[in-house]
Amino acid sequence: MSEFKRREFLKSSLLTAGLGAGAVLSCAPSKQEAESDLTIMDAIMKRRSVRHFKPDPVPEADLRMILDAARMAATAGNQQPWKFIVTRDPAVILKLKEACIAASIESMKKRENPSEEKLKENTAKVTEYYDRCFSAPIFVTILTDNKSRWPSYNHWDGPMAAGNLMIAARALGYGTVFYTDSVPDAVTKKVLNIPDQYERVCITPIGIPVEWPETPEKKDLESFIVKESF
Amino acid sequence: MSEFKRREFLKSSLLTAGLGAGAVLSCAPSKQEAESDLTIMDAIMKRRSVRHFKPDPVPEADLRMILDAARMAATAGNQQPWKFIVTRDPAVILKLKEACIAASIESMKKRENPSEEKLKENTAKVTEYYDRCFSAPIFVTILTDNKSRWPSYNHWDGPMAAGNLMIAARALGYGTVFYTDSVPDAVTKKVLNIPDQYERVCITPIGIPVEWPETPEKKDLESFIVKESF
Repeated sequence: MSEFKRREFLKSSLLTAGLGAGAVLSCAPSKQEAESDLTIMDAIMKRRSVRHFKPDPVPEADLRMILDAARMAATAGNQQPWKFIVTRDPAVILKLKEACIAASIESMKKRENPSEEKLKENTAKVTEYYDRCFSAPIFVTILTDNKSRWPSYNHWDGPMAAGNLMIAARALGYGTVFYTDSVPDAVTKKVLNIPDQYERVCITPIGIPVEWPETPEKKDLESFIVKESF
Repeated sequence: MSEFKRREFLKSSLLTAGLGAGAVLSCAPSKQEAESDLTIMDAIMKRRSVRHFKPDPVPEADLRMILDAARMAATAGNQQPWKFIVTRDPAVILKLKEACIAASIESMKKRENPSEEKLKENTAKVTEYYDRCFSAPIFVTILTDNKSRWPSYNHWDGPMAAGNLMIAARALGYGTVFYTDSVPDAVTKKVLNIPDQYERVCITPIGIPVEWPETPEKKDLESFIVKESF
C-alpha cells in the first residue's frame, strides 16, 4: 500500500471507528511498510499458517487496520455479532501457553498412559511447540455473540471475520493462524474469562514470522469446479 | 492491480492450477481493469452485498482468479473440502429464479393466507426482487464435502472460502452477495442436483453491479474490542 493510500485508509477507517481525524496523526508508522505493497491477490495467495514469531511489537495502527478489516466482513442482515479479545499482556499470554501445555500433557496421559521417559520426551516436544506458538506479541480471540440479532447465522459470520483479519494481517506483513484445537476452547474460556454468551470462532497470534512457511500442497483449481450443476 | 502484477498473478495462479503458461496468453482481458487497482483494504472496506447486476459477462480469467482466491482460504489441516458449482447457463439460472419465486410465494401462502389481491401484489414484489437477484451472468454455489478428511472443521473452512471469493471479486470490480435463505437450500439442491454428500455454504452471484450500495450503518470498531480478557 502506498503511504498515501495507507493514510487515506487509516483516516477513513479511524473516522468510521469514531475516533476523529486527529487520531490519524498519532498513528505509529508500521515497520512492515515494505510488505504492505501486496495486492489483494498476493495477500490471499501468500497467507500462510504461521506458528513461530519474532518478538517485534505490532504497532497500534496496524492492529486497528487488521481489526477494522475483520469487522467489515459479510454479516447476516448487518448484525455484526463479533467480539475481538486483544491479548498483549505477556503475563496473560504466558497463562494461555501454560494452560495449553498442561492440557496437552493431560490429554496425552489419558490417551497413551506413557512411560515416565516417554512423558518427559513428549513434554519437551509439546513445550517447544507452544513456546513457538506463543512467541507472538498479540493474540486475538474471535467470538460471536449468542445474543446477536440472528444467532443462527453466526457460524457463517464468525469465520468470515477471521478470514478478513488474516488477509489484512498478511497484507501488512504479519503472520496468523486459525487455531482451534491446538489452543483448546476450554483454555481461552478459562484464562480469558469468556462468558457463556459467546461462542469462540478461533484464536490467532499476530506477529512477524520467523519465516514464511512454504505453501502446502494444494489441489488443482479444476478439481473444485463443477460446471453448471451435478 | 497493475497490468504487470495482474499478468504475474495470472501466470502463477494458472500454473498452480496446472494449466501451464500457455493458458495465460489466451485469457480474455477484464473489462474491470480500472477497478482492480484497489488495495486489499479498499477491497475489504468497499465490498458490499449486491443484488442487482448488469448483464455484462465475467471474463474467464477473472472468474478463475476469483475461484483461485476462494481455494486459497485457510483450511483445517490443508483439507480443502470445497466444491464450487459455476452456473452460467441462462436456462439453469432461470430455473433457479423460478424456483425461488415459487418457494417464496408458497411460504407466503402458508404464513399469511393472503387475499387474492394481496397475493398478486406480493407476487409482483417477489418477482421484481428475484429478477434483480438473478440478473448476474454467473452464480457460484459453494459447498463443503461431508466426506472430507476432517468434516467437523468444514463449518469454518466453508465461509472462509466464500469470504476470499467475495473480496477477490470486489478487487476486480464485481459484486457478490452471500445468499442463504433468500435462495433456499432446497432450491439449489434440486435445480443443481447437489448430492447429499455436500453441505451448501452459500450461493453468490458474480457480476457488475447496477450500482454499488451505500455502506450500511456499522458499529464502532471500539465496540467489538475486549482488552486482554473479559
